[in-house]
Amino acid sequence: MGQSYRVAILGATGAVGTELLALLEERNFPLSELKLLASPRSAGKKLKFKGEELTIEAVSESAFEGMDFVLASAGGSTSKAWADAIVKAGAVMVDNSSAFRMDPQVPLVVPEVNPAAAQNHQGIIANPNCTTILMCVALQPLHDIQPIRRIVVSTYQSASGAGARAMEEVKQQTQAILNGETPPTESFPYPLAFNLFPHNTTINDQGYCEEEMKMVNETRKIMSVPDLKVTATCIRVPVLRAHAESINLEFDQPFDLAAARQAIAKAPGAELLEDWEKNYFPMPIDASGKDDVLVGRIRQDISNPNGLELWLCGDQIRKGAALNAVQIAELVAQNNWLERPAASA
Amino acid sequence: MGQSYRVAILGATGAVGTELLALLEERNFPLSELKLLASPRSAGKKLKFKGEELTIEAVSESAFEGMDFVLASAGGSTSKAWADAIVKAGAVMVDNSSAFRMDPQVPLVVPEVNPAAAQNHQGIIANPNCTTILMCVALQPLHDIQPIRRIVVSTYQSASGAGARAMEEVKQQTQAILNGETPPTESFPYPLAFNLFPHNTTINDQGYCEEEMKMVNETRKIMSVPDLKVTATCIRVPVLRAHAESINLEFDQPFDLAAARQAIAKAPGAELLEDWEKNYFPMPIDASGKDDVLVGRIRQDISNPNGLELWLCGDQIRKGAALNAVQIAELVAQNNWLERPAASA
Repeated sequence: MGQSYRVAILGATGAVGTELLALLEERNFPLSELKLLASPRSAGKKLKFKGEELTIEAVSESAFEGMDFVLASAGGSTSKAWADAIVKAGAVMVDNSSAFRMDPQVPLVVPEVNPAAAQNHQGIIANPNCTTILMCVALQPLHDIQPIRRIVVSTYQSASGAGARAMEEVKQQTQAILNGETPPTESFPYPLAFNLFPHNTTINDQGYCEEEMKMVNETRKIMSVPDLKVTATCIRVPVLRAHAESINLEFDQPFDLAAARQAIAKAPGAELLEDWEKNYFPMPIDASGKDDVLVGRIRQDISNPNGLELWLCGDQIRKGAALNAVQIAELVAQNNWLERPAASA
Repeated sequence: MGQSYRVAILGATGAVGTELLALLEERNFPLSELKLLASPRSAGKKLKFKGEELTIEAVSESAFEGMDFVLASAGGSTSKAWADAIVKAGAVMVDNSSAFRMDPQVPLVVPEVNPAAAQNHQGIIANPNCTTILMCVALQPLHDIQPIRRIVVSTYQSASGAGARAMEEVKQQTQAILNGETPPTESFPYPLAFNLFPHNTTINDQGYCEEEMKMVNETRKIMSVPDLKVTATCIRVPVLRAHAESINLEFDQPFDLAAARQAIAKAPGAELLEDWEKNYFPMPIDASGKDDVLVGRIRQDISNPNGLELWLCGDQIRKGAALNAVQIAELVAQNNWLERPAASA
């Protein structure tokens, strides 16, 4: 037996929080203590872990004392509010929110892509945006063969990215429409059932929404290509929990198709899924609940000799969020990177 | 009163056929006779037109005699089977199938884009693919200002493209999933409810499906740019009857954003729909039942100084099919282009 760790989940009742719990159990993360934290509203509720019932505690400064890891998935403002306390308590915060992702002091990590970055943490490691994680898992193995120069991506994003309540709302909307009734809209500005719309995050002066700029900026940081050309169109679709992405790539020279397929097939965290005869490629219903990002439909772009087209699906809650966070904790634990570099003081 | 015309609808009972009927009524197409044709299976059924009941006849060679227009929407094999008889009867066939679209003798017409092409018919005018029509309506006004050099498009295509039964099936699948049952799949190879997948048409040696090659080849023909660079990724989504498209455009020089917006706002058949503050852009629920292609979210591509991003939604059954066909008939009627050029004999 190796070392074991004291872990807290902050935001234990959300879509990602409950998946974090399931993954710590499923992957048998070496735990000496597991603490579930949430808002006072959820305190006292119980969640199952390895057959035992764990009681949710209200988050407080003292709750972080003695913890090795805090896996935070309660949104950006909660992460910002508690980050100092977590770091002061000596825990490593793996933060699923966007609060610290672009902070130059904070590593932004996809373990299959830039594991070494995690070592240089100052107490916080950021878990990237979901669509960005899925894309980077698929693109890094290609980029390792020949540098990617430009990415044009259009997304097909599921309701789960807006949380557990949004998933439930899409089902309710759908039933309402089938019954000929007006669909309820609370989580989203417009009905998502039998509909789709551009991602409902704040739009910048250039007309790009926050989700799109996350794909631009986080991809650059994770892949360590600060000037990588990326444009994104992020669209919500009436799918429950897996995202899909249509990705057009440009290189300096033609990219050998067989090499691209082989690279994806061998890549950690990715699965090559293409049956050209059966027209069978990654679908949300296949990706849901799976760890791997399903990648397929890799084609030579007929509009550009130096271009590749590819298509992927990945579980937004797992690899897009909770799984990547647990993998970051595993990476830090296995490499004994819990201690911050001396320079951090 | 101007001239009036004898019109037959071939495939009157389908999703497009019933919409053709509704549009002839709504637009008050000048009719002296309206004949509804379908397979013998549907013969005898009745459909309403301007308050009257019309009885569907079984299609036969003699049924085309004396017709001015035959609006065909019964699929490619039916169009191929009856085209000679229709042309021999002296009618102009406006064919909604893909059977003749790439035939150099057959004009492929979007009335807002290449109306003059319709004049050179030899008895058949092809109605383009639905996603292609919607895209061309939005792109021609930009192309008129500065030539488009490359198009990278990803589609979000509704169930209606596969017909009325497919739309019903998606609703049944959705209800089954909400009930915890296994969804039925007949029209599509996989469940579409709460799911999505690449367009299920035959894939060529380059890995592009038929739908994608229609967008490539038909766009070139309609816009009269035989070497236009186009790449497409066509995806079916669980939406009922409006298609959406995420389009990345490349020009030789930067495209002035204000000029792009103005061009779309003025373009026949297009409506500029963008409220940047409210994050409100074209959605399938807004486009359904509308004549115009809704275009918005026009952005300078931040990855390419000579690039533009845009987003559109259009009703697949109306402008994507039935409306465009009726507009072709109107165009031919208004210009007295029913007679074929003498050279056609």
